Amino acid sequence: MNASLAVSTVIFALRSSGRFGGDEGERALWLPLVRRIREPYDGMWALPGGPLGDDEGLAESATATLERTTGLAPRYLEQLYAFGDPHRSGDTAPGEETGRAVGRVVSVVYWALVGEEEARAARVGQNVRWFRAEELPRLAFDHNLIVEYALWRLRNKVEYSRIASAFLGDTFTLAQLREVHEAVRGQVLDPANFRRQVEATGALVDTGEVLTGVRHRPPRLYRYNTTVDLADQGPLGRAAQQ
Amino acid sequence: MNASLAVSTVIFALRSSGRFGGDEGERALWLPLVRRIREPYDGMWALPGGPLGDDEGLAESATATLERTTGLAPRYLEQLYAFGDPHRSGDTAPGEETGRAVGRVVSVVYWALVGEEEARAARVGQNVRWFRAEELPRLAFDHNLIVEYALWRLRNKVEYSRIASAFLGDTFTLAQLREVHEAVRGQVLDPANFRRQVEATGALVDTGEVLTGVRHRPPRLYRYNTTVDLADQGPLGRAAQQ
Repeated sequence: MNASLAVSTVIFALRSSGRFGGDEGERALWLPLVRRIREPYDGMWALPGGPLGDDEGLAESATATLERTTGLAPRYLEQLYAFGDPHRSGDTAPGEETGRAVGRVVSVVYWALVGEEEARAARVGQNVRWFRAEELPRLAFDHNLIVEYALWRLRNKVEYSRIASAFLGDTFTLAQLREVHEAVRGQVLDPANFRRQVEATGALVDTGEVLTGVRHRPPRLYRYNTTVDLADQGPLGRAAQQ
Repeated sequence: MNASLAVSTVIFALRSSGRFGGDEGERALWLPLVRRIREPYDGMWALPGGPLGDDEGLAESATATLERTTGLAPRYLEQLYAFGDPHRSGDTAPGEETGRAVGRVVSVVYWALVGEEEARAARVGQNVRWFRAEELPRLAFDHNLIVEYALWRLRNKVEYSRIASAFLGDTFTLAQLREVHEAVRGQVLDPANFRRQVEATGALVDTGEVLTGVRHRPPRLYRYNTTVDLADQGPLGRAAQQ
């Protein structure tokens, strides 16, 4: 046996920044972490995950971790990277996630997006806590680097794909979409500039409907134009999830 | 033990399409494959690879495979994807690459680019043969899908990154760069349009030098403008190779 294999998942949700569970304030990215209850890194926070089951696909394992940690199903799930540096778990430490005494763990990491409404109602398991993605403590193993890379991938991808709708649902207002971009990119965007940029890409379609429950000038609802060809997962999108 | 871990590598080289080793004709993408000499898929062609060594990093394993198969060092190396479907090696088949009797193999796949000059001089190992990427036979395991995905990644990446220089070296003429794009994208490009598009991106810098060995109107040499910020590997580019 050369290495033990684990699957971990970076789960992003969009929440108001004031207090998790609240409705007010600017939106920000949050993610759930699990407190370790054994060495190595006993007591420190780590990405949720676990050893790959015998008959379990990689994406299936990531989905099961998400369910176990938050009770949620992913709106979006994608493989991030396989991390396999021989010394990432420490030279003499027992195996990551598994807790078994193995010298080496390769982690296949996924990242997932969950909807804002679902995340608000998410179950919080024992030893699970949500953290602002921008304000993480020092995590176990190389998990700070992993989250940093996942954030970088998300920030790139929100620019050229339709993944913002994973936070929002199928239809959304331009203000809601701008809030997602602001939270993901961590910067305030000018509404008029944002509208111009989005309209220039041809990525959105006006549904002809408006947001309900708003009396004065209810904003229009848009959806992504799925006839636009995007660089996504290519041949892997056609194959079954691996 | 839940799964056995292997590292495989898709190695792309740019070669003239007529005959591998020749100098004439239009450029095309080629890759080396290894003939399997045991079950499963005995006698079929497969991506070069092998089990991950105990103290070996993932990229290190991919580099060692490349050296073993071709005698070459990669000009560019990037992790492609981890493939881990429980049934990808067949339900009852012994393990992929390793040949040992295990039920399940997760392959972390890398893709590599080697330079045109080096590829021409590449050693061809026993049971190794180069194939045109567009004319592959039915390969062992899910390796056709893996190559298809690697091609897709390369085609996307040649549009927004500097990886074409991995085939060419640091300086190149616009005609040489166009030939790389033609080979990767599998289509003939209009020279004037290509020049306009490339100049519009600001990605190239005129070195002020010209191609030597050409007497009549020697073409200018360009290099990539490394001050342009590109979406590359982000935080992982700063970390040690995994």
